[in-house]
Amino acid sequence: MSKEYAFGIDLGGTTAKVGLFRVTGELVEKWEVTTDTADNGSHILPNLAASVQDKMAEKQLTKEQVLGVGIGVPGPVVNDASLTIVCANLGGFGALNVAETLSDLLDGLPVKVGNDANVAALGEIWQGTAKGCDSMVMVTLGTGVGGGVIVNGKVICGAHGAGGEIGHITVNPHETARCGCGKTGCLEQYSSATGIVRCMKQLLEKSDAPSVLRGRDFEAKDVLDAAREGDALAVQELKSCANYLGFAMAGIAANVDPEMFLLGGGVSRAGDVLVNAVTEAYKKYCFSAIREIPIKVASLGNDAGIYGAVRLIKGE
Amino acid sequence: MSKEYAFGIDLGGTTAKVGLFRVTGELVEKWEVTTDTADNGSHILPNLAASVQDKMAEKQLTKEQVLGVGIGVPGPVVNDASLTIVCANLGGFGALNVAETLSDLLDGLPVKVGNDANVAALGEIWQGTAKGCDSMVMVTLGTGVGGGVIVNGKVICGAHGAGGEIGHITVNPHETARCGCGKTGCLEQYSSATGIVRCMKQLLEKSDAPSVLRGRDFEAKDVLDAAREGDALAVQELKSCANYLGFAMAGIAANVDPEMFLLGGGVSRAGDVLVNAVTEAYKKYCFSAIREIPIKVASLGNDAGIYGAVRLIKGE
Repeated sequence: MSKEYAFGIDLGGTTAKVGLFRVTGELVEKWEVTTDTADNGSHILPNLAASVQDKMAEKQLTKEQVLGVGIGVPGPVVNDASLTIVCANLGGFGALNVAETLSDLLDGLPVKVGNDANVAALGEIWQGTAKGCDSMVMVTLGTGVGGGVIVNGKVICGAHGAGGEIGHITVNPHETARCGCGKTGCLEQYSSATGIVRCMKQLLEKSDAPSVLRGRDFEAKDVLDAAREGDALAVQELKSCANYLGFAMAGIAANVDPEMFLLGGGVSRAGDVLVNAVTEAYKKYCFSAIREIPIKVASLGNDAGIYGAVRLIKGE
Repeated sequence: MSKEYAFGIDLGGTTAKVGLFRVTGELVEKWEVTTDTADNGSHILPNLAASVQDKMAEKQLTKEQVLGVGIGVPGPVVNDASLTIVCANLGGFGALNVAETLSDLLDGLPVKVGNDANVAALGEIWQGTAKGCDSMVMVTLGTGVGGGVIVNGKVICGAHGAGGEIGHITVNPHETARCGCGKTGCLEQYSSATGIVRCMKQLLEKSDAPSVLRGRDFEAKDVLDAAREGDALAVQELKSCANYLGFAMAGIAANVDPEMFLLGGGVSRAGDVLVNAVTEAYKKYCFSAIREIPIKVASLGNDAGIYGAVRLIKGE
């Protein structure tokens, strides 16, 4: 019997998204499993294994029909082979061989593990906007800034699990405020959802100019909406955020020269107003050979992780 | 009969270095062939083919004993498969399928082509300082700044042949002087041999401080020698050059996270005084996971290209 099915898991701090797929890329069904961070996260993998096994029973799938399970985790995946990982946000779920542990819980079903941002990039190259690309860099603009760098169809994990950690590229050597990583001037301090709000507040404080955002609470989405409507200060903030993104992306392009850049994560839902500003900034910092690399919005949204996890277990 | 031998060629604008190697990595003999740029460079490949065939005759090597020829060329190699290249410095030697043409001239002997900076990096990972590394980034500090990025034992060529073009990473958005590439603020404008001289001259003009370099012609080597001897203005220039290098390398590390950085090219002969300054700057711009990546000097010198060319034809 051929191995027609595979499971993709995107493990987050609150819930895990799980998908049953045909190995050809068709999503059969998706659901969520609560991430139980109690007892140092020791229930997380057993719960996921039980959920996979329940679904196999429900669908009357035998082990022989399932290629395996791919899983994206919110932390660095230090080594492709031994897959030891450390996840800061999972209740102490520390250095652990996720692949081996989950495979044991699933009666030997093959398991592969990747960093969540890297796995999302794999999803987009397999079934999303970058379908058919051999190389692509995805910049995920969420609470932080993550990234996935794919070359020759494979994710660059890095020698220390730091491949694609583009949120911590220094883009402003003059910054004095500290990033969560401990240093100063990281891309994440300007171009994440948190960074956009932080910088917009600074602009409002430094200026007396009118703005629809003055005197109220707002989120990154509100800043980008205001910029789209022409609010001058919000436009200024958008340009600043896009300038740092373009600067970092131009540096990445002079290094790995991908076929395409994708913007993902919540901030990327701003669409054209963001893409256009980033593209303009990017071109300013690029030499000619890489200036026309297209910058697009990722299309799989929150499902990129489960798609990519299946791509991972299929073999990149 | 087993294929025990291979040729490595490093094609430069003035001469080509050619090496006969055992495929195990032992250099049997090396020599040079003048690069004849007359007639739009149309003699270059026939001359190289003749030189390889002469050496085979001299050593009584049959085609069956030779694995093939690897060649590094001073221009972007646009596509791994079709190997069409454009070389600006070879007398108009334009878009040409070097691999196919040279192979035809050599009676079908396999030929592989790579960009020279990328091929030099391959040499260093095969038989040089980075021997045994799976990933490495080499920064070549010569007249310009070149680079070779190796991940999973393979060079990243890039979708437009711009992989490892790290000399054109923007490191100073405030620069007004133009780089040869047409934009401003490129790493090459500060950290190449040319850049070091340019910036040192600016420092001397702006300051009245004494310096052994004042009132005379000097090269990059003189600046680095003066810095080693404690000349205050030369130390200032060394720190500035190292600061830009460290900034760019930290960005690269947050992107591909290599096992090691190597500094190559003429400027790298400065040794410890340069490596220490670059390492100090690098650490300032790095988050913790990548801060301890070693920065070393390349060891194969001018032979890196012929070693790497053989590694290329062996299969990366």
